[in-house]
Amino acid sequence: MALVHYPVLNKRGETIPSAITNLDLHDLARLACTFDLPACYMVTPLKDQQQLSEKLLSHWRERVGKELHPDRERALRRLRVVDSIEAAREDIRERSGTLPKVWATTAREEPGAISISEARRRILDSDSPRLLLLGTGWGLAPSVIEGADAILEPIRGFSGYNHLSVRCAAAIILDRLLCTDRT
Amino acid sequence: MALVHYPVLNKRGETIPSAITNLDLHDLARLACTFDLPACYMVTPLKDQQQLSEKLLSHWRERVGKELHPDRERALRRLRVVDSIEAAREDIRERSGTLPKVWATTAREEPGAISISEARRRILDSDSPRLLLLGTGWGLAPSVIEGADAILEPIRGFSGYNHLSVRCAAAIILDRLLCTDRT
Repeated sequence: MALVHYPVLNKRGETIPSAITNLDLHDLARLACTFDLPACYMVTPLKDQQQLSEKLLSHWRERVGKELHPDRERALRRLRVVDSIEAAREDIRERSGTLPKVWATTAREEPGAISISEARRRILDSDSPRLLLLGTGWGLAPSVIEGADAILEPIRGFSGYNHLSVRCAAAIILDRLLCTDRT
Repeated sequence: MALVHYPVLNKRGETIPSAITNLDLHDLARLACTFDLPACYMVTPLKDQQQLSEKLLSHWRERVGKELHPDRERALRRLRVVDSIEAAREDIRERSGTLPKVWATTAREEPGAISISEARRRILDSDSPRLLLLGTGWGLAPSVIEGADAILEPIRGFSGYNHLSVRCAAAIILDRLLCTDRT
């Protein structure tokens, strides 16, 4: 899984880099640990944001943070800060021997998007690696959506409201994709 | 749904009031809106915490916050700050004519906890109101668990790790309980 901070859209539809937050690091790492994902990438090309992330991570992975919250340390070990989506793909290739398929997520209706059941079928059919992209800000930039190997249908609720936080959306998507004891 | 800030446990198992965070207000309100829950309660008996919450809410519900993020305003309209779980129950009685059954959630194994499928059956069998309790800090105090009409089984992942954030846990629980188009 990768939480993408660039390229993403802002409110006006412009492509921007968004800011990494401490809370996203924790929530996403804890999700990755719960669902036993091999890694969770934080994607940002901004050097100061990378440094900030590493500083936050070292607080929780070492010394006081680790002592007070060993379960956080365990989860945050899976987190990696990378420059780009391509760097995350390369890292997966180094670890698994195979470049992953890239699956983009979106809150918008996109032509050709696949259902969760189709995505589950693909996971069951082949254990080749996948990289699931989640956008911050107002979502992944069109170039990312267009370049993905597949796009997952948005999560639909009951009220036509589709403005979940990326943390909650990630939780629901992973649970729907991977959890088998749901009933 | 209610996010309980008292009585909850701290790391040492003591019953304490936890602090309300701006982010929980937003994430939980957006979840409540997505799944069309009638209300989302923030439970705290602390007057300063109630005032802080109302101040945060008024920022997003009125003036600049509402103009910049109308979707947040729409979600936050469902949020109510109350003194106690009992006050949330009374509010539901006033609105629906019936005192709700209280369903507690936990990350721990509890004797007599019901499965998600059993909980779904109960929802389908009767449309009487339920109040779903989520604990902050290190979880709901034992008195709350013991006093509940039902306890939901914890979310299990694949790694024995069960330290999801309350935001992500709430997302998964609501999706499992209410969403019917999961496959």
